[in-house]
Amino acid sequence: MAVTFPKHLKPIEPQGASLLQQERANATFKSSELMEYIYGKEYLETRDRILHILQNDPILGDKSHRYYNGRDFRFKKSLAAAKRLAELNREHKWTDEEFGIAEFLFDEPSAFRLHRSMFMPTILNQGTEEQKKLYLEPAMRYEIIGCYAQTELGHGSNVRGLETTATYHPETQTFVFNSPTLTSSKWWIGGLGVAANHAIVMARLISNGKDHGPHPFIVQIRNLENHQPLEGITVGDIGPKFGFNTVDNGFILFDHVHVPHIALLARYSSINKITGEYVTPPNSKLAYGTMVFVRANIVLESRYVLARAATVAVRYSAIRSQGSDAANPKKLTAADGSVKTVETPVLDYTMQQYRLFPIIAQAYACHFTGQEMHRMYYENQEKMAQGDFSYLADLHASSSGLKSLTTTLAVSAIEDCRRACGGHGYSLFSGLGQFYQDYLPKATWEGDNYLLTQQTARYLLKTMRSVRAGKINDKNATFSSQYISEYLSNPQARCPFTSVQDLSNPEALLSAFKFRAAFLVEKAVYAIDVEQTTWNDMLVEIYRISRAHCQLLMVSNFVKAVFNDSAMATSDIGKALQRVAILFCLSTLEQEAADFLTSGYLSPDQALMIKQHTIAVLKSIRPDVVALVDAFGFPDYLLNSALGEKEGDVYEKMTAMAEKEPLNQSTVADGYEDYIRPLIHSGKSAWKIDQKGVARL
Amino acid sequence: MAVTFPKHLKPIEPQGASLLQQERANATFKSSELMEYIYGKEYLETRDRILHILQNDPILGDKSHRYYNGRDFRFKKSLAAAKRLAELNREHKWTDEEFGIAEFLFDEPSAFRLHRSMFMPTILNQGTEEQKKLYLEPAMRYEIIGCYAQTELGHGSNVRGLETTATYHPETQTFVFNSPTLTSSKWWIGGLGVAANHAIVMARLISNGKDHGPHPFIVQIRNLENHQPLEGITVGDIGPKFGFNTVDNGFILFDHVHVPHIALLARYSSINKITGEYVTPPNSKLAYGTMVFVRANIVLESRYVLARAATVAVRYSAIRSQGSDAANPKKLTAADGSVKTVETPVLDYTMQQYRLFPIIAQAYACHFTGQEMHRMYYENQEKMAQGDFSYLADLHASSSGLKSLTTTLAVSAIEDCRRACGGHGYSLFSGLGQFYQDYLPKATWEGDNYLLTQQTARYLLKTMRSVRAGKINDKNATFSSQYISEYLSNPQARCPFTSVQDLSNPEALLSAFKFRAAFLVEKAVYAIDVEQTTWNDMLVEIYRISRAHCQLLMVSNFVKAVFNDSAMATSDIGKALQRVAILFCLSTLEQEAADFLTSGYLSPDQALMIKQHTIAVLKSIRPDVVALVDAFGFPDYLLNSALGEKEGDVYEKMTAMAEKEPLNQSTVADGYEDYIRPLIHSGKSAWKIDQKGVARL
Ligand SMILES: Cc1cc2nc3c(=O)[nH]c(=O)nc-3n(C[C@H](O)[C@H](O)[C@H](O)COP(=O)(O)OP(=O)(O)OC[C@H]3O[C@@H](n4cnc5c(N)ncnc54)[C@H](O)[C@@H]3O)c2cc1C
Ligand SMILES: Cc1cc2nc3c(=O)[nH]c(=O)nc-3n(C[C@H](O)[C@H](O)[C@H](O)COP(=O)(O)OP(=O)(O)OC[C@H]3O[C@@H](n4cnc5c(N)ncnc54)[C@H](O)[C@@H]3O)c2cc1C
Repeated sequence: MAVTFPKHLKPIEPQGASLLQQERANATFKSSELMEYIYGKEYLETRDRILHILQNDPILGDKSHRYYNGRDFRFKKSLAAAKRLAELNREHKWTDEEFGIAEFLFDEPSAFRLHRSMFMPTILNQGTEEQKKLYLEPAMRYEIIGCYAQTELGHGSNVRGLETTATYHPETQTFVFNSPTLTSSKWWIGGLGVAANHAIVMARLISNGKDHGPHPFIVQIRNLENHQPLEGITVGDIGPKFGFNTVDNGFILFDHVHVPHIALLARYSSINKITGEYVTPPNSKLAYGTMVFVRANIVLESRYVLARAATVAVRYSAIRSQGSDAANPKKLTAADGSVKTVETPVLDYTMQQYRLFPIIAQAYACHFTGQEMHRMYYENQEKMAQGDFSYLADLHASSSGLKSLTTTLAVSAIEDCRRACGGHGYSLFSGLGQFYQDYLPKATWEGDNYLLTQQTARYLLKTMRSVRAGKINDKNATFSSQYISEYLSNPQARCPFTSVQDLSNPEALLSAFKFRAAFLVEKAVYAIDVEQTTWNDMLVEIYRISRAHCQLLMVSNFVKAVFNDSAMATSDIGKALQRVAILFCLSTLEQEAADFLTSGYLSPDQALMIKQHTIAVLKSIRPDVVALVDAFGFPDYLLNSALGEKEGDVYEKMTAMAEKEPLNQSTVADGYEDYIRPLIHSGKSAWKIDQKGVARL
Repeated sequence: MAVTFPKHLKPIEPQGASLLQQERANATFKSSELMEYIYGKEYLETRDRILHILQNDPILGDKSHRYYNGRDFRFKKSLAAAKRLAELNREHKWTDEEFGIAEFLFDEPSAFRLHRSMFMPTILNQGTEEQKKLYLEPAMRYEIIGCYAQTELGHGSNVRGLETTATYHPETQTFVFNSPTLTSSKWWIGGLGVAANHAIVMARLISNGKDHGPHPFIVQIRNLENHQPLEGITVGDIGPKFGFNTVDNGFILFDHVHVPHIALLARYSSINKITGEYVTPPNSKLAYGTMVFVRANIVLESRYVLARAATVAVRYSAIRSQGSDAANPKKLTAADGSVKTVETPVLDYTMQQYRLFPIIAQAYACHFTGQEMHRMYYENQEKMAQGDFSYLADLHASSSGLKSLTTTLAVSAIEDCRRACGGHGYSLFSGLGQFYQDYLPKATWEGDNYLLTQQTARYLLKTMRSVRAGKINDKNATFSSQYISEYLSNPQARCPFTSVQDLSNPEALLSAFKFRAAFLVEKAVYAIDVEQTTWNDMLVEIYRISRAHCQLLMVSNFVKAVFNDSAMATSDIGKALQRVAILFCLSTLEQEAADFLTSGYLSPDQALMIKQHTIAVLKSIRPDVVALVDAFGFPDYLLNSALGEKEGDVYEKMTAMAEKEPLNQSTVADGYEDYIRPLIHSGKSAWKIDQKGVARL
């Protein structure tokens, strides 16, 4: 007999649904309006259409198995879902954007994920027309399934250290792939463990005795008839991971495998089929453009991650009532007009606000910065098409640092939100646990979050030197060179804040962020150029510089969007977002106060004032917080969370989900006979037990 | 056919084992000496003895299944292991300490864990002699298995809000247990879901119409013959969690269940059997003593957590070679004397040092503070036995904050170390993933880490007021009142650091920590007493105060142990630990620099100097770091980590573990026929495939 909860029991009053209703009634704006502002009507319609398809699909509609099962079960379920998504894609002729929405809503990485996100784009960007025809078209129809095999067991971030070789043999017109060591095994490759039959393999191209370093090849790896590995290939799954277990990250080793000449992706560099001569790539900066695009998407994605985590924690905190704020106990007025004191929703405790509200602010900050990066990406593409590369370096540097900063923020946000849910946050039913596990690698891949900051800082140091050398003019000035120039024109500037009113002045806040970033850059240039400090000894400072620069970008974009647009500035949503922007500035400033203080820009008294005023700003957005997360409009289907769903039936959902736990499918769980009964029955002789099994020991 | 790695392949040179050997040779002290200093000879012998038993046990010796399986499998394996541990315990007549060592080494929470850690101690501390005889003795023999059921679905940290009632009926001389709402279901109770047949239940004691609030009862919940729930009881498992899935955290609901009078644990409060009269508890402060003890143990445990995470990340970073430090490339001298440039072990990058070395320092800091707390616990017990309660409040307040601080540090450390291992950190084979998942709840239970700080700060504010009011004298002075007095005697004091030499002066560093803590306390007293700020509006500051106080304690205990003991100070280990202590002070100071700067104590120039000098201090301990983690002597059996084992065969271990992945047990994984073949074969007509399955698309 399965365990079930008595159905007549209700949660303690007040009910979650009514608490959320009150929250929504108290907001200063309509969340539906903000939602439309964020996404646009058209996107929302598309999303709803796709949501409807998924929710009603026999295979994709039900996510209820996700929290209970081990890898084997979940992997197979996920494979079935990936196939179904591919079919729906063909059936509905989805655009890339629509397919992306479906993947987002389904919210489970699959064995086919890298096929679309890395395999196909790499062929598109680096293949010749012939290669595109040959590989891309069947790939789009899922007739071949690919993956992207760059990382090896021994080398990830240092791509130049890769060991796999592809040696060209003009006699056979083939490349011979070989894995000389154990560490040369490709490793971590999503889709490779089980699903893929083709791979983009990064291997050292060797021809006529010369090693030209890593190049991309497209290699068939499994038999298309029966899926067995081709001769000379050892391929498999790398085993269980912290998350991402619905993906078959795999390894592959080559033992002198011959691959035809066409395998080398030859848009940029190629090998003469007859002579084996290497044709050098034209130095293409265009590839950097693509990277900016990918990273702009990561920033926009991190906005969703932040907002989703906040949605769960904020809604739950509005319901979760625990203890009482003695100075300001929560009162509820009943239908009959009587007033009752109830426990305080934890959302009313300033500590909880301090932990959660800045995350909401970060979500909006990422929204505006992601949008701005997209805009600049297109602007830059146009410029580059006209041969103007003046934006590229700045954009690329900023995008590196922003990938690092926003994914770092997003990862912490999920965990901070989970912890803010107390014990129940630790239940998988919170919807935050697996979410964290699956998102986490974003901090490591597509550029390790520490390493990436070196690119950002390197560019900023160079910019400082150029500004100093007078090499910056109206034509090549960028946001970075401008704030650095401003700083250099007055490095003794001091923060003008004298009263809390000043703390609501976005321009003054922006100036502070500019000063701090430029100050750090200047000190680093001095350390390197004058004090001869090595790059390695500067790495910690370099990380800080990148963070300072990117926080500045986020402040700048946020302020521009909600203060400098006059229609916006006078609307209800605009006013609410202005408060959020101020919170973003102040909470970031407070958290990084050491930098501001150390530069001498901020005085101790000003820092104290900011610390105190931040609490007041938290309160100013308190009435809006549920509406602010509602505005992201995440469907319950996505959240899959007992704590965070829209209606607030937290406790009913927790118990309903617990009923599905496999251990509860009988009142005495498997294992009792073998492992419990023998232990406790060794003392049986001493018991007196009545007919009902009740003991008198 | 299963997938296997070609056995002739070796990792790229240099091999991990040789790199670790070099590291060990470079250390300034013998790690075995430091190990003995940390643990004492006797403890190490005991540990080795127990380790030997476990490693050679047919059930406990093999941990290889842990990373591959889902909850159902792991839960049953864990139950079997728990039974086996119980048997070994009986067989070897282990002391509590020995059993604790066995649990530590086996390193997997089980369904029986709360039986020993909460059920038995609660009876011991709160039961009468009769109750101890009745329940404790069979519990020690595992003839009854218990759990500790306090938390409910609706209430955790606010114990006063618990809803379960136990109403006394003098007619039947029974308490009637009832769960009036869904939220009154007990929830999160370790051991309850499957294993326990008894529970300590915290329920509102109601007698003669009066509600006396939550009291502990001991209640039988499952039939001792067949393990079925007793009448009126609904009991089961709460479902999957982020970690801790080898434990059956459970729920229980009572529908008017009669329980005999003896059930109320009656050492402190009781009910007259005949009249139902409530006998008020003597106000016992003794219970606080126990809490101090529990928390001292948590601090000592967090030392192991920090050290274990660091062991994995430091050893792996000494092996993982990636890229090159251009200014200082790594050279290796071969046996034949030839010198070769190789890649740089990531441990040589200052950013990696900055991320990892402070964690080592924290581990040692927790070691000394945990020891000091133990010492003070015993001193205080003696004093209390003599009726002297003057230490208790201080000790209790500090222990609350230290639980919060050290577990917060330990949780972040595991994740920081995992991330520092790059991609491989994300593999469960790193040994850090499950470790993190299982340790994580420590931040939430035994007092939520945010809530606990209120107790610490409340005491410190009170102390400040007492000092001001002249109520502190030689007899009742404590560490806290002393540093607060010092501060009040000169609140305008300024930090005397003028050169980097000053930064190695432990007393000067200690003074800085004292000033900062006292400054925060003073400001808070002013805000509350003068500005009438509410407690709720102070919560963020209160958190900071507790942190500042506890960091001060850790600095103070560390400095005392390694600078003020003259034998220590001149030995090799002593000198090494002094560098570690300085790193602890500086890295903490740097991280919290905003506080120090805001108080005006530290100047911007001093802060800059500290920031720069911290990098130099990292370098000063670089030669010792492998020895510093070796000194904790964690056996590979405990670590269960491909990256962190003692010999350094990282890549061989990674591949050996991957071979065990269930998906690799055949070269074509299950799921191909159903979900991959139909997709790709839809385009088959267009392929040309040779006999070997190689396609020409
Ligand atoms: C879930 C997951 C999926 C993946 N999928 C794919 C895939 O499909 N295809 C693919 O090719 N790869 C994939 N990867 C691999 C991923 O791209 C790499 O793990 C990532 O690039 C990090 O490299 P690494 O593991 O070598 O880290 P390492 O470089 O070994 O980093 C270890 C540590 O050293 C530090 N470090 C390294 N170099 C330096 C330096 N020069 N200076 C200072 N510090 C340094 C790092 O910051 C880090 O702390 C995946 C990884 C994961 C976790
Ligand atoms: C793995 C695990 C095992 C457990 N095992 C047991 C067990 O065996 N027996 C048992 O009885 N319990 C057990 N627990 C329950 C545990 O003790 C509680 O989860 C814990 O006490 C936190 O309480 P809560 O969940 O009610 O959090 P909540 O109090 O609901 O906390 C939610 C949030 O509100 C904040 N908050 C709450 N009150 C206030 C306030 N007054 N002021 C400011 N902020 C506030 C918290 O800081 C937190 O951020 C277990 C929990 C876990 C996760």
